[in-house]
Formats: sequence, C-alpha cells, structure tokens
Amino acid sequence: MTTQEILIRAKAAAPALRSATEAQKNRYLFSMADCLTEKTSRILAANDLDVEAARGTVSDVMIDRLKLTKDRIAAMAEGIRQVASLPDPVGRVLTETVRPNGLIIEKVAVPLGVVAIIYESRPNVTSDAAALTLKSGNACVLRGGKEAFRSANAVTEALREGLKREGASPDLVQLIQDTTRQSATELMKAVGYVDLLIPRGGAGLIRACVENATVPCIQTGTGICHIYVDESADQEEALKIIENAKTSRPSVCNAEEVLLVHQNIAKEFLPKLKTCLTDARATEGKQPVELRLCKRAAEIVSGTPAEENDFDTEFLDYILAVAVVDDTNAAIAHISAHSTGHSEAILTRTPEHAEAFTREVDSAAVYVNASTRFTDGGEFGLGCEMGISTQKLHARGPMGLQEMTAYKYVIKGSGQIR
Amino acid sequence: MTTQEILIRAKAAAPALRSATEAQKNRYLFSMADCLTEKTSRILAANDLDVEAARGTVSDVMIDRLKLTKDRIAAMAEGIRQVASLPDPVGRVLTETVRPNGLIIEKVAVPLGVVAIIYESRPNVTSDAAALTLKSGNACVLRGGKEAFRSANAVTEALREGLKREGASPDLVQLIQDTTRQSATELMKAVGYVDLLIPRGGAGLIRACVENATVPCIQTGTGICHIYVDESADQEEALKIIENAKTSRPSVCNAEEVLLVHQNIAKEFLPKLKTCLTDARATEGKQPVELRLCKRAAEIVSGTPAEENDFDTEFLDYILAVAVVDDTNAAIAHISAHSTGHSEAILTRTPEHAEAFTREVDSAAVYVNASTRFTDGGEFGLGCEMGISTQKLHARGPMGLQEMTAYKYVIKGSGQIR
Repeated sequence: MTTQEILIRAKAAAPALRSATEAQKNRYLFSMADCLTEKTSRILAANDLDVEAARGTVSDVMIDRLKLTKDRIAAMAEGIRQVASLPDPVGRVLTETVRPNGLIIEKVAVPLGVVAIIYESRPNVTSDAAALTLKSGNACVLRGGKEAFRSANAVTEALREGLKREGASPDLVQLIQDTTRQSATELMKAVGYVDLLIPRGGAGLIRACVENATVPCIQTGTGICHIYVDESADQEEALKIIENAKTSRPSVCNAEEVLLVHQNIAKEFLPKLKTCLTDARATEGKQPVELRLCKRAAEIVSGTPAEENDFDTEFLDYILAVAVVDDTNAAIAHISAHSTGHSEAILTRTPEHAEAFTREVDSAAVYVNASTRFTDGGEFGLGCEMGISTQKLHARGPMGLQEMTAYKYVIKGSGQIR
Repeated sequence: MTTQEILIRAKAAAPALRSATEAQKNRYLFSMADCLTEKTSRILAANDLDVEAARGTVSDVMIDRLKLTKDRIAAMAEGIRQVASLPDPVGRVLTETVRPNGLIIEKVAVPLGVVAIIYESRPNVTSDAAALTLKSGNACVLRGGKEAFRSANAVTEALREGLKREGASPDLVQLIQDTTRQSATELMKAVGYVDLLIPRGGAGLIRACVENATVPCIQTGTGICHIYVDESADQEEALKIIENAKTSRPSVCNAEEVLLVHQNIAKEFLPKLKTCLTDARATEGKQPVELRLCKRAAEIVSGTPAEENDFDTEFLDYILAVAVVDDTNAAIAHISAHSTGHSEAILTRTPEHAEAFTREVDSAAVYVNASTRFTDGGEFGLGCEMGISTQKLHARGPMGLQEMTAYKYVIKGSGQIR
C-alpha cells in the first residue's frame, strides 16, 4: 500500500476512536497485547531475518537494539497492558465557565486525530507508540527504520489482528511500507492528514523535520544536558550525582554531557572528580570517563583539552566536557548559549542560587540537587512517554498521554446572539 | 535596523522580562499607555501620511481600518490598561507531584521568549499585540503591513518610550523596518530567535507560514463556519441566530458562511429564511443576504445556484451558502469535509443530536443553540485575545494570555540519583 493510501485510511479510521469509551479502548489494548504474545514465533522469525541482514553492517549496540527475544516481546505486551491501566486523557473538562449571558463554555480534552511517528530501529517503539496513540484516542501511522522493517511489520500485523478481534478498524494502527527517505518526507508534508508528527531519532532526523515539515511537529530528544556545581555544593553528593548522570546510561538523551564548576571550588573539586570518574572506575573494572577540559580546568587536572565544539556535542558516550565558570550567572549564561533545552541541574546549598538557576535556565527540566537522568515519563509519574519534547510549544519535557491530546470548546446556549 | 539585528536585540532583551514581577510588568504597560496618549498628535500625523498614500489604491473598508482618530488612540491606550488588569499567566504552578523517591516536581508556566507577529493594516494590532506579549513575559517583534507602516512605527515609538521611562529595555517591543516580503520570510525561518510566530491575516499569509515557517507557528483566523438547523430546532430562534451569525459583522472570521438544513424541515424553514435574510432586510433598509443554494435547496426557494467551491469559501460578505442535508450525521460529514476547524453550531431540541454534534465535530468551538459570533477572547472570558487558532497543537480557539506561555518542570531534590 502506498503512503498516501495509508494516510487516507488513517484519517477515515480516526473519528470512530474519538468517541470510543475508555472501556472500549482498553479492550482494544488488551486484545493487542494478547495477539502480540500469541504471534511471538512469527515475530521472532521476522526479527531473525532483520538481525541477519544487519549483522556486519551496523554496530553491536545497534544489533542489540534490534534483537527481539521471547522475553522482550512479553515485555512489549506488558507495556501495552500498562498503558491500558493509565487514566483516559480524553473527555476531561479542563475549565468550565458560565458567562453573564448564560452561555456555558467547556474546554474539553479531545484526541488530535492522526499521529505519525518516525522512528529508528527499536522494534518495541512500534507497540509502545501504537498503545499510547490508541489510548489517547488517536489513529497512528508508524514509519520505522529500514533495518527493523520485518520486525516492525510483524509486530504491527499482530496489533492489527488484536484490533480486528475486538471489532475495531485495523487502520487505527498502520506501518508505512516504504522505508526510503521519500515516505518520511511524505509524512512531513501530509497537511490535512497528519495532525501531529513526532520524530524520534538522531539529530539529522529532527533537523530534517524542522526544516521540511509543513504538518505540526514536535521535536524530541536531543539532550546536551548540563550540571553546574556551585561553590556551596555538598561535594560528595555532587560526585554521586555526576557519576550517575554521566555513566548510568550514557546513550540516552537525559545523560549529562557538560559539567560546569564554580571557580572557587575548582581546585578542590576537580581532582576528586577525576579520581571518581576515571581512576576509581578503572580500578572497579568500570569504563572510565574521558574528561574534555576547558583551559581553566586543564590547569588543575589532566585530561583531553576541550575543543570548541565539545561544549555543543551530544556525546552519548563515556565523555564529559568540563568548564570552570565564575559563578551561577556565568553558568546560566553558558547554558543559555549551549543547551538544547532538555535538562540541566544545579548542585548547591544556597537557596538564592537555586532560585535564580531554576528561574532563568530556559530548559524543559531544571533540577536542584538531583541527577538529570530523571527526565522520563515514568520517573515523572506520567506512567509512560512518547518521547521528550525539547521545544516550547504544546508539550515540553516527557510527553505522556495528556500531551497526545488537543482541546476544543463546547458551548451550550439557549438562543444567545451577539 | 535590519531584521536580523532586531531579532538579536529581542533575544537579548527577553530574559529580563522572564523574571519580572507582575507589578513591574503592569508599570511598563501603564507607562506604554500613557505615552501612547501623549504622542497622539505625532501618531495622527504619521497616520495621515499612510491614509493619504493608500487612498485610491485600496478599498474604503481598508481605509477605514487604517484610519486613526484621537478616540481610537485613546481606545488603544485603554486596551493596554485592560491587559494590565488581567491576571499574570507566568509563574502559575500547573501541577505539583511528590515522587516516592522524594523528588518534588513542579510544572510551572513560563514565558515563551520572543513572539513574532505578522499582521496587516490595523494599527491597533500594534499596541494590542505588544501589550499581550509583554504581560505574558515575552519580547515581541512586530511586522505590520506596508500601508500602515508609518502609523505602526509611530505607535511603536510611543510604546518603546513608555518602556524606557520605566527603566525597561525598549527592545522588548520592536517593529520590523523592512516591509517587503523578505522580512516576513526571515521571521518564518528565524530558528533560535523566534519562539512563536503568529500570522494574523488572510489565507495567503497563513498558507505562506504553513509552507515556509521553520519556527513554531500558530495558524489563526480562517473561518468557514457552519450552522446546522436540525429537524427539532426552534425555528424562530434559529432565524435570529442565523441572521446574527451572518450579518452582525460579516467581515470577521467567526461569521457564518454555510447553513445546513435538515431535509424534513427544509420546505417549511427555507422560505422563512429567505424572507428573514433577504426580503425583510431589504424592507428595513438593511443589506440583504445573497443565498447560494444547493440543488435541493434551490427546489424550494429562489436564489443563486451554488457552485462547488461556494461550500469552501470564506465569503466575509453578505453571502450565505445553503445546503439541505439528510440528518445530523450528514451535517457532521459535510462539516468534516469542508470546515476550516473554527466554529460550528447545531440548533436543535434533541439532546442526543447535540451530544453527537459536539462530540464528533472537530472544530475549535462547537455550539449548541447559539451564534458562532461568540468565538472571541472577550466573549469567552479570557479578557483579550491574540487571534483565534484553527490548529490543534498548543492553542485552539481564542488565544489569551495563557496561550502565550509555555511551561517547564522544576525539580527539587536532595541528592537523588537513578
């Protein structure tokens, strides 16, 4: 089927879901989860072909992302059931106003319509994205990566079978069959068919969407996250937070990439940092962190001299750019110049500095005395997430079910004219 | 000054406003209002030049829009004072969550940063837009129409003088000096400088923004608004509502453009409609409404036969397209195929039909038994508006101060790691 045909079907299928009850949607989700488990062997067979084709052409990390197992499929099904257990975001009355002329104005949460998601090689995104869009009352059009096409297609077929069994239209969940760049461009330009486009992937994909999309689009994911250690910080606590933010999972967008240290404690703190992140980790058999040091930092400890672009790079690796700054204002100014607007933290025992930092740093998540790794739908109590928005319009930070809805005004009158 | 220089100044000025208190912002606004009145004669002189240059080249309606008087300037100043009296949308804690690990997560309303507005010839938009962006903590970059440039520039100079007197940066309110198409295109592509672009104008401008903008953009204004008269409607009330929606101000986006009538009452209702909108109005010396009739309607009353595109046209004039439909579902289907998503109404005494209509019609404002003319920030109790969004992302319907803000998460910890 062509991309255009898929879009027409999605648009036709969406309205039925708009008025589905929560119980109905949950029945669809449970049925999708059951089908996914039932079709495990078929999905694994398709995945084997993907993995075989990819071997040798991509990194081991990529192969690991691509690889499905019986347990992973069971976890995907469980993920769908968890989405079913989340509260329905549709139909909530956000505000109600009674006007002097008697008009009753309700602002009500409604589905967006058709949500398109462009993603890469993780097959579990297929079921996660489908579950979240369905629970929020939207039809979804999925466009996965080429290397994972057979897996994503097998997963989608199972989900569609689950919908059919409950009498719902399978067109509520569709996978784009064309994995060339053209289909991604078609989605970006599908005005009138796509109500929201969510690109989940690397900086190149996000940039292509920003530059080319004529449909509403939410940028997700790129995170050059900063931690600033203030003069008054609890230094032992700071080391634990920094090690956690940098090394607990370096490949994710909420990992720390840049460390800023107040000049008055740099001499004391940087040697401790070096011990903690490199020497101690090496001794413990963990991968040490490479420090890329600004001039002032390099005068205090040894490490790689930082190049200019090290402060504008999302390493996604065991690398940390380190700069010494004059004070909190200088830290805020550095972040304002270099951040992608994802997550930043100040470590301090001075409430005024915490206050200035949280007020003036213009990012989706601003932390005081905690790791940036908490920027995540689950950790924020949203129960799930569709990605982390780094833009300001509509949704910012983790996008849960609420962020997958729009609102409309319903106005009840008794003959009012103006 | 070049557009690029103006953008750089706006970006530099915006952060100071982010942390301004409500009292400070209100002082700025009152000072802006005072300056506007003080500079009345200078503004009128500039406006005279605009009006003189425009005479003969544009319609009388356009001249009237462009023309300022002492009273109109006083009303503009009063408009600014009214914005000062509205509650500050910044700093509201939208949600607060305490997580099991002790993290306190606040979702707080914050300014967007720099808001750019592209508009046409009404000089009052200059002061309205400046007041709304300032109260919501944003810097504004205004790009008005060529015909009104001298007026808009004189108004802007007065507003900037008001800011200066209170010690604020005049760069919080700037007018683009280049009125060629190039400056509009520059604003659409100013990624990193413009946090929100609001085009206020005709369909051509909106389309250009949708197609070219790489900055976040909100579509406003185009309204092909429908009223559906159900079988059970109170017909006398329906006539009053239709006449109001069509004729009280035909040039605005919330005016009715299309009437749908249930087939079972068409024979009875359409003759009454014709009397009310044409014959009676002519007798009363009011401008009669031209009816453009679908085939089924034309069998019942006389009028202009509708052409296909009459059901996809925003007339903004004393013209009404009329179609007979089978039932409520057919009305919903017609609206789904032809609406711009602005405002639609059902006139009915059948609660189930009202319920189906409000649930299934996917527009910003959906009315039961009232005129579509109420879709307006003031009428909705928002106190003001920056335009009416016809898109679903971020803001839908009248955009008040709240819709001019984003949010961020502020997370307070005590050493938490993940």
